[in-house]
Amino acid sequence: MHGNRRSKGSKLKKLLEDRSIILVSNRGPVEFRQNESGELETRRGGGGLISAMTAVSEETRATWISAAMTSTERSIAQEGSAIGFPGDNPLYRIRLIDIPEVVYNRYYNIVSNPLLWFIHHYIWNFAEGPSITTEIHRAWHEGYVVANKLFAKAATEESLKHKDPIIMLQDYHLFMAAKYIRELTDKPFLFHFTHIPWAEPDYLSVLPLEMRLQLMEGMLSNDLVGFQSKHYASNFLLCCKTLLDCRVNWKKRVVLWQGREVYVRAYPISIDYNSLLRTSESTDVLKYELKLTEENRGLSLIVRTDRSDPSKNIIRGFRAYEALLSKHPELKGKVKFLALLYPTRENIEEYRNYRNEIEATVDEINRRYGTDNWSPIYFRIEDNYSESVAALKQYDVLLVNPIFDGMNLVSKEGPAINSRNGVLVLSDNAGASAELSNASLMVNPFDVDRMADALHRAIVMSPHERQMRNDYLKKIVMRNDSIKWLHYQLKDITSLEKKRVLARI
Amino acid sequence: MHGNRRSKGSKLKKLLEDRSIILVSNRGPVEFRQNESGELETRRGGGGLISAMTAVSEETRATWISAAMTSTERSIAQEGSAIGFPGDNPLYRIRLIDIPEVVYNRYYNIVSNPLLWFIHHYIWNFAEGPSITTEIHRAWHEGYVVANKLFAKAATEESLKHKDPIIMLQDYHLFMAAKYIRELTDKPFLFHFTHIPWAEPDYLSVLPLEMRLQLMEGMLSNDLVGFQSKHYASNFLLCCKTLLDCRVNWKKRVVLWQGREVYVRAYPISIDYNSLLRTSESTDVLKYELKLTEENRGLSLIVRTDRSDPSKNIIRGFRAYEALLSKHPELKGKVKFLALLYPTRENIEEYRNYRNEIEATVDEINRRYGTDNWSPIYFRIEDNYSESVAALKQYDVLLVNPIFDGMNLVSKEGPAINSRNGVLVLSDNAGASAELSNASLMVNPFDVDRMADALHRAIVMSPHERQMRNDYLKKIVMRNDSIKWLHYQLKDITSLEKKRVLARI
Repeated sequence: MHGNRRSKGSKLKKLLEDRSIILVSNRGPVEFRQNESGELETRRGGGGLISAMTAVSEETRATWISAAMTSTERSIAQEGSAIGFPGDNPLYRIRLIDIPEVVYNRYYNIVSNPLLWFIHHYIWNFAEGPSITTEIHRAWHEGYVVANKLFAKAATEESLKHKDPIIMLQDYHLFMAAKYIRELTDKPFLFHFTHIPWAEPDYLSVLPLEMRLQLMEGMLSNDLVGFQSKHYASNFLLCCKTLLDCRVNWKKRVVLWQGREVYVRAYPISIDYNSLLRTSESTDVLKYELKLTEENRGLSLIVRTDRSDPSKNIIRGFRAYEALLSKHPELKGKVKFLALLYPTRENIEEYRNYRNEIEATVDEINRRYGTDNWSPIYFRIEDNYSESVAALKQYDVLLVNPIFDGMNLVSKEGPAINSRNGVLVLSDNAGASAELSNASLMVNPFDVDRMADALHRAIVMSPHERQMRNDYLKKIVMRNDSIKWLHYQLKDITSLEKKRVLARI
Repeated sequence: MHGNRRSKGSKLKKLLEDRSIILVSNRGPVEFRQNESGELETRRGGGGLISAMTAVSEETRATWISAAMTSTERSIAQEGSAIGFPGDNPLYRIRLIDIPEVVYNRYYNIVSNPLLWFIHHYIWNFAEGPSITTEIHRAWHEGYVVANKLFAKAATEESLKHKDPIIMLQDYHLFMAAKYIRELTDKPFLFHFTHIPWAEPDYLSVLPLEMRLQLMEGMLSNDLVGFQSKHYASNFLLCCKTLLDCRVNWKKRVVLWQGREVYVRAYPISIDYNSLLRTSESTDVLKYELKLTEENRGLSLIVRTDRSDPSKNIIRGFRAYEALLSKHPELKGKVKFLALLYPTRENIEEYRNYRNEIEATVDEINRRYGTDNWSPIYFRIEDNYSESVAALKQYDVLLVNPIFDGMNLVSKEGPAINSRNGVLVLSDNAGASAELSNASLMVNPFDVDRMADALHRAIVMSPHERQMRNDYLKKIVMRNDSIKWLHYQLKDITSLEKKRVLARI
């Protein structure tokens, strides 16, 4: 089923006809570097989102616009033209844009993270943060707005090179881009997809009125806005109703805004199964897998792999494990928790503090429960995708317990490649819960006590039940891969445009 | 207008006819103590809520049920009968109930505060708290549930002594009482009023499913539920829809639940103006007022008076003041910030930490900006109502900037008795904003930068504008006093019951 990418691809092409896709996201699919002899080298970016979007770009021969991150990339950006990629056999085009460093810092490290990210994941401690200071007001106007305008300009330029272009804006970095594109051109179909959750109106109201209105206006400048789940789409509709007093048709999920209809839909993202499978069979992964099985012979492995982000709920995960050991002392020396974390957003104070807290918690638990022969938690923070993939193949229990999460692709990658009929313990508040709840052990991410019970249930589960659940998860994940995800979007775009044309007649 | 309590009272009596009101709240109107010679003494409780409810009780000759707080009160409670109060000329009856200390601690210090209070004020830092531990599960079942059952039992007993009783359950301590009353009797009309905000569904989902359902079920066991504002009433309806999938009629604000209709209404609470006026003219207050004016001659006074609760946003208030001094150095030595705080919930770690942070912030600002002759902030945490009332009479600017707040009665008390045409700087997220926004300087409580601007605008405002605004505020506050508040409730109760009787015919 999943191997059948060619036939899915041809369906896509039929939908697209001769239209072009302009993909816009903060981060691009590859990193350009100069090697020692001055030649341009590329390295693929990691992460589930990038790999899903890469599949999409390759299938559709898209143009992908993103921000230059390094000095090498800045000089490419300054040339202003798109580059075919991969160089030897170009499947899609990459265009980099140069956002001045001071603007980028305000746009990325102040407004996008933590301000917007923390809001949509409900992880501000309102008693303490955020404080909307003069600095944040400036970061909004001279950072977020400016960066969104630069993306909009590049997207407009690229779109004008094509017939009936579709601009696909990605994520919370670009909430306002559509507004500025629309000021420049009416030609492209504008579609924004939010990869993270969308907060309810009271929580979004943390933003000063002016910012809130600009943000909502930016979103409503699209023709179509997409979310990971119906729940987040509903939250967005609620914000339209409550914050802007828009007319909302709840049944059709349409917002009327300044004489235009804006459609609001859910498109749960998935993984690029084929590419993940290839990675999982690489020598690098196999080496880690061997090391892992040798070192943990006879132990039940609880695995988590995440960026070390407060939204991922890493500390409560450890506390649940601690409660497990304390409720079930017979498990001491028989289980191990592998926490394979990635460093992330280390320019931001909140992230540095969170990382310190994680380390202190691990130390405390290892000191309290460890013995000479057994350390309850193995923990690292390191960019090591191969080791994570190895662990996903070998887990007995996969813990995915985010506080809130747009989708969470680890919860799909794990079951897809796990070889031990491992059990997925999944947060109610991960977007993935809408698809995976039937075969996972669902947990309220705040309920440390019941999370411990779920871990226990997973560890002692019968082989038969483990297999049934794992088979079911595998099936669901493979049925909806990243090409299918794009397919649903294009189908909607096509039918919305037809409606529009008919309305004009 | 406001002096006309007798005529309002007689209108109330007409509405009530010969029905009786059973008021139920965690804390009662007076404190019973034994003096040195063993005689029973009483002391009225402080706080806006108690004084508003006292007016209601006196007018309606209610029976007021509350928890015994001291050993003296526990022995009164054990006798099981209600006491007429005041002793010399009883206007209403007080019944105390004995909740075992271990139960009370779980119910009050673990579940009600901080768990429920923090949820409804959106002040959890989800990355850190709450963690629903075994202890919290136990506190729910063996604390909150048990205490609510004890209140329900006493309320049922009292209600059975009367014809057509109305039970008025107050606030977040008693979210489940109606369910247990309904298990015992169908006779009384059940009305719950929530004095604090009501959170949106995602935020309420912090509670484990079981607790969440029990809580909603408890609320929907009432015939009528009341909130401080339409906004919070809408949030509650949204929770009914999202969490329970109830049928909700948004226009009529009715929820259909297990074959019954539950009405959802907003009744903005107000103050007992007459009693406040009496207090404000007492010798004690006049002494403080004199001291205050002498000590601060020639200074513009910014005043705040709150419990030292994280929801009150005290630290951002200081930061806004700091930004004011830094943006407008000409104000140094010409303004003073009086922060008159009350100690509160000191058994709870989060409150102790918050108090420490407040103190550190004040020290920092006073050290940084203070001179030999001028200290920018005068600050105390002390139970001193007279001093607060004196400050409310004398403020030039009153800062009321809660993160979220059900109503906030300080924002009504201040304008009612202020004698300097002081300006109210008010948070968008105080329930009072629905009534007072037209004549206040409204602020987003997170926006420290704009809060500083609002303080500045208030300080330099023309006498004419100050007077216009203050007159308007006084008028609004006096128009809706606490008797009126009850009046609206009783009117609705009467008409809802008529509808019910008609439906039966």
